[in-house]
Amino acid sequence: VQTYLDCFPCMVRQTLEAARMARADEALQRRIMHQALNLLSQHSVGTVSTPPEIAYQIHRMVHSQTGAEDPYREAKRAGTERALALYPELKEIVRQADDPLDAALRISIAGNIIDLGHSLAYDLKSTLDRVLTQPFALDRREALRAMASSARRILYLADNAGETVFDRVLIETLAVPVTYTVKGGPVLNDATRSDALEAGIAPAAEIVETGSDAPGTILSQCSDGFRRRFAEAELIVAKGQANYETLSDRGARVFFLLQVKCSVIGEDIGAPVDSIVVWQGGPVRSGDAGNDGFELSDKEIS
Amino acid sequence: VQTYLDCFPCMVRQTLEAARMARADEALQRRIMHQALNLLSQHSVGTVSTPPEIAYQIHRMVHSQTGAEDPYREAKRAGTERALALYPELKEIVRQADDPLDAALRISIAGNIIDLGHSLAYDLKSTLDRVLTQPFALDRREALRAMASSARRILYLADNAGETVFDRVLIETLAVPVTYTVKGGPVLNDATRSDALEAGIAPAAEIVETGSDAPGTILSQCSDGFRRRFAEAELIVAKGQANYETLSDRGARVFFLLQVKCSVIGEDIGAPVDSIVVWQGGPVRSGDAGNDGFELSDKEIS
Repeated sequence: VQTYLDCFPCMVRQTLEAARMARADEALQRRIMHQALNLLSQHSVGTVSTPPEIAYQIHRMVHSQTGAEDPYREAKRAGTERALALYPELKEIVRQADDPLDAALRISIAGNIIDLGHSLAYDLKSTLDRVLTQPFALDRREALRAMASSARRILYLADNAGETVFDRVLIETLAVPVTYTVKGGPVLNDATRSDALEAGIAPAAEIVETGSDAPGTILSQCSDGFRRRFAEAELIVAKGQANYETLSDRGARVFFLLQVKCSVIGEDIGAPVDSIVVWQGGPVRSGDAGNDGFELSDKEIS
Repeated sequence: VQTYLDCFPCMVRQTLEAARMARADEALQRRIMHQALNLLSQHSVGTVSTPPEIAYQIHRMVHSQTGAEDPYREAKRAGTERALALYPELKEIVRQADDPLDAALRISIAGNIIDLGHSLAYDLKSTLDRVLTQPFALDRREALRAMASSARRILYLADNAGETVFDRVLIETLAVPVTYTVKGGPVLNDATRSDALEAGIAPAAEIVETGSDAPGTILSQCSDGFRRRFAEAELIVAKGQANYETLSDRGARVFFLLQVKCSVIGEDIGAPVDSIVVWQGGPVRSGDAGNDGFELSDKEIS
């Protein structure tokens, strides 16, 4: 997904929120704003970066200006605690469902409302009620179910802290072993290993790190080990907008589970804002290096 | 009112909307975004400009890049037409009111929802219903009423096209002659002379131009004639946020009628977002040049 002009106001807002999360004082907030505007100005003429790549540069800059290692730490912990308080109810919903896997899939997508890059405020309960009955705007659930029934293992790409608890409910419902991948370091409220552990993922899935602390999954920045896992995976479940923005061209093994939260993603994926989506990547075009070739080129491995 | 960091995301959004209103193609939108980000970057370090002053620079730049004289022309006309469709109902509300002046004052403030710098979408009917009964967060209505009963003439500073129709209802209810001032040229959806004429202001009030095409009322950019009127006015009614942002330090003759539409204004004026306000300027501090001295200095007149 390319960066659209509509992403720029959103990134300026996110810059300011990140600076405040990092407890920058007013003067430092101004310096950070100044640098972010300059950085965005460079990207405004013909950039080929995806939104998560630009957001990554902004969050790195905020980090270097403030020295804050993990500005969203407290917000992430609060998000996980709120989600854990809902966990017994989520389990009960799955237990009583006619189709437990479908209920768990919807629960996982409901948790995608926790996205502090999009908005600092969210309502878990009303989102859950909505997503449990909402029709899918794009619906590849049957294809996902078919592939999940034959796959030996699922590579599950996490999104945000707190959303992890909703993922856990889906993982506990799946019959297939899951490898749950988290960021290699903190960025925004994206889940790291410690966030996944706080959500209770550990007994349900193997946790691995991508080796990158960028939002989404920018394969060229991930570790060789992770890229090998990605290349070899039979089935990949990718949560949230940023993973869609960075992996939408990675083939039909990848299923994207998300809520459409902004018009840029909505127009790109072809679904309205506030809709829910299970989207499957298209076949990789011939002429492209393909998933394996690209991620495991000699140059990048060596 | 100084420009706060929270104004920057909003101005980036407004830039893009203005470029599209001016029918710039994608490539030109990118150049406009690039220039706006550079301009905002300069203002991000220690600017003393008010938000309308920065917005003015952005809209001038969009004008020079696109050649569009009045990008919001169609949107303004649509706003006036929608408001005129409501006019008979507005008059009936005043006619049936126990306190017609209070009802007309609320109607004028309800019309302040038409503000395309704030949002391209608005709902006139639901706003009217709300504002007709909503308590005032800041309430200098009695002082305004007292001054209006003794003033020989009111200088009424217009805000936006369409809002003009709601102003007309207030003007027609007032017992005092009114001079209605509009922008000297188009900017955003601010009312110009032709917008005021389309709203039917003409028989109810004398229409004069400020001589400036900046948002709000930046006195240093207005004509000598307008500044003299401003200096000599016994009572000034100023509509909307931009007039507050540019005139809040102009003394107790100025009453601001507005809806608080963003947190920056809310924190500055001391009222919550979505509240309604009749605010009176404080006394001009001694040591300041004062209204008359400043606006009519020899240097500026000559």
